[in-house]
Amino acid sequence: MSLPTTERLLLGPGPSPVSPRVLAALGAPPRSHLDPDLMAIMDDVRARLTRVFRASGESFTFAVSGTGTSGMEAAVANLAAPGKRAVAVVNGYFGARLAEMLGRYGCDVERVEGEWGRAIDPALVSRALGPRTDIVAMVHAETSTGVRNPVERVAALARERDALMVVDAVTALGAMPVDVSAWGLDVCFSCTQKGLGAPSGMAPVTFAPRALARIVPCRSFYLDLTLLQDYWLRRKYHHTISAPLVYALDVALEEVEDEGLTARWQRHEQQHLALVDGLGSIGLSLLPPAPERLWSLNAVRVPDGVDELAVRKHLLTHHEIEIGAGLGPLAGKIWRIGLMGSGSTAENVRRVVAALGDALGRG
Amino acid sequence: MSLPTTERLLLGPGPSPVSPRVLAALGAPPRSHLDPDLMAIMDDVRARLTRVFRASGESFTFAVSGTGTSGMEAAVANLAAPGKRAVAVVNGYFGARLAEMLGRYGCDVERVEGEWGRAIDPALVSRALGPRTDIVAMVHAETSTGVRNPVERVAALARERDALMVVDAVTALGAMPVDVSAWGLDVCFSCTQKGLGAPSGMAPVTFAPRALARIVPCRSFYLDLTLLQDYWLRRKYHHTISAPLVYALDVALEEVEDEGLTARWQRHEQQHLALVDGLGSIGLSLLPPAPERLWSLNAVRVPDGVDELAVRKHLLTHHEIEIGAGLGPLAGKIWRIGLMGSGSTAENVRRVVAALGDALGRG
Repeated sequence: MSLPTTERLLLGPGPSPVSPRVLAALGAPPRSHLDPDLMAIMDDVRARLTRVFRASGESFTFAVSGTGTSGMEAAVANLAAPGKRAVAVVNGYFGARLAEMLGRYGCDVERVEGEWGRAIDPALVSRALGPRTDIVAMVHAETSTGVRNPVERVAALARERDALMVVDAVTALGAMPVDVSAWGLDVCFSCTQKGLGAPSGMAPVTFAPRALARIVPCRSFYLDLTLLQDYWLRRKYHHTISAPLVYALDVALEEVEDEGLTARWQRHEQQHLALVDGLGSIGLSLLPPAPERLWSLNAVRVPDGVDELAVRKHLLTHHEIEIGAGLGPLAGKIWRIGLMGSGSTAENVRRVVAALGDALGRG
Repeated sequence: MSLPTTERLLLGPGPSPVSPRVLAALGAPPRSHLDPDLMAIMDDVRARLTRVFRASGESFTFAVSGTGTSGMEAAVANLAAPGKRAVAVVNGYFGARLAEMLGRYGCDVERVEGEWGRAIDPALVSRALGPRTDIVAMVHAETSTGVRNPVERVAALARERDALMVVDAVTALGAMPVDVSAWGLDVCFSCTQKGLGAPSGMAPVTFAPRALARIVPCRSFYLDLTLLQDYWLRRKYHHTISAPLVYALDVALEEVEDEGLTARWQRHEQQHLALVDGLGSIGLSLLPPAPERLWSLNAVRVPDGVDELAVRKHLLTHHEIEIGAGLGPLAGKIWRIGLMGSGSTAENVRRVVAALGDALGRG
């Protein structure tokens, strides 16, 4: 089977474009999972991820050998158990996934439901917090709706009740403010292929000391935090980490830090606003109200009477641009346009608006 | 952190060397997890893996997005449950890992213990098979001891009792005969970074129809076979597969099939025998008796009075060759020399024997 030879502009919900330097890192001479060279790079990855999450030096911050979903499961598998009560915010596809995982691992889960396309009201979470809640779980940047949930306010509520706060920052990290220490998050997980700009395949995760003190016996062997600490911190064999993915993540994190987190967030905000303007100029609008929008992922309403699939196919075949479809109840109703990592540029905003204008005959 | 720029010859227990063509595949233009180009390549990977496992066309054969250990866990997580009885062969580190996982997922596990460094006696397994056994699990190529277990004979015993036969072919697939259909294996899993010659990060797995008919509700979301079938077969989003790893695996499988499985096995056998001769010429011998040895991984006795770590360090720093240490009760007692994938060559045999001779002053 021949591999792709042409570039495709990845403006869907992720993966985002990979810079030439990050892509080249994949091809550096491979090392084994216990090689001193690789271990030094893994230490660098840990240090950089700790800074990018703004996590405490006392945290265990590393990357699971799997995609973002494996990061979510690592968070859940090491904290959830029968007898534990969890409150989960469900106002999108990934909130629902998080709630489902907590249930699979035996928690008694109370779902705080919210409208898909709106941020959750913290008062609803407050009401759901009973006399004993072990875990509060929510998605920061809800990739299915383009909505930013008020993580900081919910985390404060969780802390008041001494519950652990578990946050999905998959579509936020590296693209929008995430501050694990200042917000008092206990576990936060992400992916490599969105705001960080690496290929998919690893899942950055941070466990703060309060979470580390409350981990449960983990049913999963692959995601067992104690075994992962043995490997990442004490060089004891657990699994054969993929050197090319570690190289790419390290170089991607170097690019994030060279740009500077604040500058990177500003770039994402600026290009998001430029996209909103550009879409407005061809009569397209976003699903969430302005104050609740992500900078990384834009949920764009499909106009009445428009075949959304035909538009995506047109963009792919005539413009080599990928955008995403809606998920669940939003299937057919929105497109999802990601501007993340190295993909968040003025040129890409121009290209995608022009392509949509062409597809809709509104150019 | 700067990435490695020099080659290191990977002759440990895996990862094995990656050919230039496979390494280059990692850098092909990335596609998203739902891109039609990537889906076509994933179909090709499925077809090639089905042939390489010699699995039935009715099987579900694919690759988990994680390392070989995640493949082991996918096998266990979809078959094991409280109330199920499993018999697990434990004559090495990976047999012990498999038994542990079955226990973590709730099975009542009977361990059939055997000497580390010898193949298991099928009569011991036969005795352990009670009136009702649901799962028989064993490692084909025990990476920790260099021993080949009699999978075919044990599989026949399992079939007689209507138990599912689960086999770890991590250090066998692509290097030594594996024949899922002819041997009647129900689930078989492997990794990408050994006999197949790709980087690590994916885990080929095959579920035969008999296993598919007996899967249990899976606690893991990431490893849930039903959701993985939805994604691999029906293009329904489950996780963001890593395009570079899929590309590399596809090209590696193409190299395996271009060489031909039988020719590849013969090459591995031939170089294994050449290594045994070469080691003999400098007074080194293997742990397992000749008929029980793997062709892919050689467990070499550390001579009395020799500092095994110093020898490995010497090889790494003076010869840029990595070999492996012993695990568990064999730590300090053996070296593990892998000749797998593109690493199984006459030149590499010559290099590692010369380097060991130099380190031991027996050159």
